Amino acid sequence: MFIGEVVGTVVASQKTDNMNGLPLRIIRRLTPEAELTETYAVAVDVVGASHGEYVLIATGSSARQTQQTDTRPVDAIIMAIVDTWQVDGQVRYTKQIPLETPI
Amino acid sequence: MFIGEVVGTVVASQKTDNMNGLPLRIIRRLTPEAELTETYAVAVDVVGASHGEYVLIATGSSARQTQQTDTRPVDAIIMAIVDTWQVDGQVRYTKQIPLETPI
Amino acid sequence: MFIGEVVGTVVASQKTDNMNGLPLRIIRRLTPEAELTETYAVAVDVVGASHGEYVLIATGSSARQTQQTDTRPVDAIIMAIVDTWQVDGQVRYTKQIPLETPI
Amino acid sequence: MFIGEVVGTVVASQKTDNMNGLPLRIIRRLTPEAELTETYAVAVDVVGASHGEYVLIATGSSARQTQQTDTRPVDAIIMAIVDTWQVDGQVRYTKQIPLETPI
Amino acid sequence: MFIGEVVGTVVASQKTDNMNGLPLRIIRRLTPEAELTETYAVAVDVVGASHGEYVLIATGSSARQTQQTDTRPVDAIIMAIVDTWQVDGQVRYTKQIPLETPI
Repeated sequence: MFIGEVVGTVVASQKTDNMNGLPLRIIRRLTPEAELTETYAVAVDVVGASHGEYVLIATGSSARQTQQTDTRPVDAIIMAIVDTWQVDGQVRYTKQIPLETPI
Repeated sequence: MFIGEVVGTVVASQKTDNMNGLPLRIIRRLTPEAELTETYAVAVDVVGASHGEYVLIATGSSARQTQQTDTRPVDAIIMAIVDTWQVDGQVRYTKQIPLETPI
Repeated sequence: MFIGEVVGTVVASQKTDNMNGLPLRIIRRLTPEAELTETYAVAVDVVGASHGEYVLIATGSSARQTQQTDTRPVDAIIMAIVDTWQVDGQVRYTKQIPLETPI
Repeated sequence: MFIGEVVGTVVASQKTDNMNGLPLRIIRRLTPEAELTETYAVAVDVVGASHGEYVLIATGSSARQTQQTDTRPVDAIIMAIVDTWQVDGQVRYTKQIPLETPI
Repeated sequence: MFIGEVVGTVVASQKTDNMNGLPLRIIRRLTPEAELTETYAVAVDVVGASHGEYVLIATGSSARQTQQTDTRPVDAIIMAIVDTWQVDGQVRYTKQIPLETPI
């Protein structure tokens, strides 16, 4: 798997029948130090990630090991939303929990 | 998956039996900013894409998850024609709908 | 798939049992403009390609989707011999049909 | 497979159902001379590796050939902890056995 | 497949159960001109190759298409020992047959 940021969305109305209803996201790959790279993938989102979130991407036949993508021509999925990660004992990223709006 | 532009066609009369009738297209990979790269693939078109259209390519065993390509030696397919995509809140590409010829 | 030129042959007498009788060819990858690159693969030839011919290579599990390579440890095959291809409306390559020797 | 060092951990609470309980590690790839590279992967640990240990990573569908990862959307696993390796007759790495604390 | 040289060995005592008894070799990739590159892989040897021999490596799910590696988390195997290869009509490598010791 690799870590990436959800940066965009692809809309495609003409596609193979079995792809209807699967949201397609553009993901930019991140380094372990949380820097954006130029490498990207288009992945099916099966966990409901939002724009700007950091996610884990599984590729290849492993992308079909979910109920939504089984037997579909999908070679990359968002299989997790990252809460936090650390490298060499240092936290490199922690998901910001949005503050609740005061009443 | 990755986004590419249909730029060409390959004709091959001598091929494995089970490949007859499958159209082979040359696809150039695009960046998320819709710039052409030097990376290309030859893919089987299962959705009827035209020259110059932007498409989504699925690779590996996922390319066999369609009725047309099942059990065939195909490692890349055009599985969708892109209508539009956006990155960082900006539309980077929208398919041009050809104007109808006036009567 | 990618387009390549058949440039060589590999001979290996000690191999896994199920590989006997499968011809191994060295293939150099070509650009869509028909220029040779440094990238190469060793592929099993299932269509009877000759030295110097331009061919299509399928990789990964797709290379096992033929009668000859089914259940064998093969990750690349020549699955077609290219007759011609065009990019951006221009023919980039056409297979030379050898002239018949006059009687 | 490739050799890597366990350098970090990823925590993700929102993920596909079948991924619960599988520890996710960040692995940096090593050269055969035991030098760290910039290439990394996120892999599921099925052997109980510790931070700083050198491990073997299997990728693709092969990552699902264990009891813990079977039918799960996993494309990389730690499948072994390296004790030692040698290249060209020279030992390049040997795992340090921690000295027992004297009584 | 690609051609490589057997340059080393990896020893790993802690590994997934189904990996016991499979020898792990370090392989450096060769160019078609028989020059060593920096690219390497760790592969399971199923044909009994020796240090310094030139071999063919199959990767991905194809690496599991042998009796020894079936259903095991193996993504690369040595599937053949190269006797000789030629490129563009020139022999680039021929395996040296050791001279028999005179009596």
